[in-house]
Amino acid sequence: MSNWEKNLRKITPYVPGEQPKNSNIIKLNANENPYPPSPEVINALKNFDAEHLRMYPNSSSLKLKSAIAKHFKLKESEIFVGNGSDEVIALAFMACFHSSKPILFPDITYSFYPVWCSLFDIDYQTIPLDKDFCVNIADYNRENGGIILPNPNAPTGMGLYKNDMEALFEQNKNSIIIIDEAYVDFGAYSCIELLHKYDNVIVIQTFSKSRSLAGMRIGMAMGNEKIIQTLEAVKNSYNSYTMDSIAIEVGTASIADENYLKQTCQKIIATRQRTTKALKNMGFHVFPSQSNFLFVTHNTVPAIEIFEKLKSDNILIRYFNLPRINNHLRITIGTDEQMDILLQHISNIVSMS
Amino acid sequence: MSNWEKNLRKITPYVPGEQPKNSNIIKLNANENPYPPSPEVINALKNFDAEHLRMYPNSSSLKLKSAIAKHFKLKESEIFVGNGSDEVIALAFMACFHSSKPILFPDITYSFYPVWCSLFDIDYQTIPLDKDFCVNIADYNRENGGIILPNPNAPTGMGLYKNDMEALFEQNKNSIIIIDEAYVDFGAYSCIELLHKYDNVIVIQTFSKSRSLAGMRIGMAMGNEKIIQTLEAVKNSYNSYTMDSIAIEVGTASIADENYLKQTCQKIIATRQRTTKALKNMGFHVFPSQSNFLFVTHNTVPAIEIFEKLKSDNILIRYFNLPRINNHLRITIGTDEQMDILLQHISNIVSMS
Repeated sequence: MSNWEKNLRKITPYVPGEQPKNSNIIKLNANENPYPPSPEVINALKNFDAEHLRMYPNSSSLKLKSAIAKHFKLKESEIFVGNGSDEVIALAFMACFHSSKPILFPDITYSFYPVWCSLFDIDYQTIPLDKDFCVNIADYNRENGGIILPNPNAPTGMGLYKNDMEALFEQNKNSIIIIDEAYVDFGAYSCIELLHKYDNVIVIQTFSKSRSLAGMRIGMAMGNEKIIQTLEAVKNSYNSYTMDSIAIEVGTASIADENYLKQTCQKIIATRQRTTKALKNMGFHVFPSQSNFLFVTHNTVPAIEIFEKLKSDNILIRYFNLPRINNHLRITIGTDEQMDILLQHISNIVSMS
Repeated sequence: MSNWEKNLRKITPYVPGEQPKNSNIIKLNANENPYPPSPEVINALKNFDAEHLRMYPNSSSLKLKSAIAKHFKLKESEIFVGNGSDEVIALAFMACFHSSKPILFPDITYSFYPVWCSLFDIDYQTIPLDKDFCVNIADYNRENGGIILPNPNAPTGMGLYKNDMEALFEQNKNSIIIIDEAYVDFGAYSCIELLHKYDNVIVIQTFSKSRSLAGMRIGMAMGNEKIIQTLEAVKNSYNSYTMDSIAIEVGTASIADENYLKQTCQKIIATRQRTTKALKNMGFHVFPSQSNFLFVTHNTVPAIEIFEKLKSDNILIRYFNLPRINNHLRITIGTDEQMDILLQHISNIVSMS
């Protein structure tokens, strides 16, 4: 080892999921939306004047913040935007979890939370989901340096309701609580209406799922001005211009088209209900989903076997080789046509086992 | 103060320069390129299929890395890309400056370096430029945990040559050295050709200046595979998808159009030479620039006075109220037409003082 190498950070490479190169694949492994973004987004991109790219964007993405504020009836100063909700959460970890006590999150949840803790040297403690894979709010009634909770949770897809969230907030008034609402538009309860009641709560959402903009990288945080100001200060100490000029325009157009969002989510919810029923008929336990994916386990056929067989048939779903959930599968809701093909393949696999 | 606020990070808000709303302004304060991006970039944006935005980008931006590697005759595994060179530098600070010894950089340089040190708790020591505002390589011959040096330096615009850089690398083989080449295409010496000789050096460049893509946020690092791998691991622990799908396409198109880059830089260099001569004739000391800006001070008229008067005439240049340089001005090179207007206004200010 050369002597300079001692100054390189020792870090376990976190390997993100690969995008398949084969375009014949039915891709139900990344919770992407099967429908294109709003026609307003497509217009905004078409009308964008590329010559503007020579100049820096507005560093506070004011146009986008203003659209989000109007949409959610909040103030611009209560909105933060970043380069995907992953960046927003990373910056929020740096801004809000500055405590010597451990932060709390579920044992089964978004796998990036412990990665950020490791990157930023934040101590954490995982709280086990109950035997039905539900979050039990009473378990979060302990000393902590902050809480992050996705609602609905991933990869289980199950959400908490208003009374649960209020109970969580009431019992943790000395901590900052981040609610990660990446999948909330598919039928879960959003805490945005509680933000003016609880000043220690921030809600993070993404444009990658319900708004079909995973390729554009837009995420947002909403909460009280003091937290948002600290988020801005951390962002401006990391990269003054996280949002490019096109993302600002495209995001603004997406927010403006509320009807399209609702229609798309309704279609996905309908497909989810139909798929749930079909899978139950084939002997699956299907957890009640409020997201754009299903979390399932089969009565007799091992998850890994179903996963591998579908993969060899060019259908990608998600298998996690992790404690407690290594016999489960996460299936993104695609179009009705995609789900019909999936169900046919699963039916063959299950009947042959 | 509510009890949860103790967990908020104490951070001095770093306030980025504002983009003026008035479009009549001649904007020579942010080192933006006065010319639009390459026609290839404009085509790439026009041909981008917005429906693809529903899917995540390739997390390693392989297409863009491949174009950069080909252009600089390096391997793809020697290339890293990020959301503007600011993000690339931020991630490089986290990846490469993991030492208990202080890192070194000039006292007069890019103002973001100490901000990143503060954000990531990195100890640093500034090395004074000499009395002519030049970097003296011998001053960097001391124990350190790493070095970051812009070449050419900002806001002075002056660069170092091959022999200086090799001397720096020879005397610091136990540290990682980052060379920030944001302005290199405007006539300075690039260390890329030295990367295979010195494995502890990385070069960072940006698409924001010579490539007229400040609004798109693309930066890159080049260096040996071990450092690049650590940068990837840190990036993937922060945000797996820092580059959006459009940035990948647009950046690839920009790299491919080498002729346009050369032509644009030549135009700016010619305008710089003409402007330098004119300013000298008006009693300015003009530092020899290898960048797209001039660093100047007038024999008799205070810098702040010139700055304020130009501002009231809707011409924005940059004044730094900092030790050693508070009687200096930084002027971005615009079009010939913009510089003619600037020179006329400066001539009036100087002759009336």
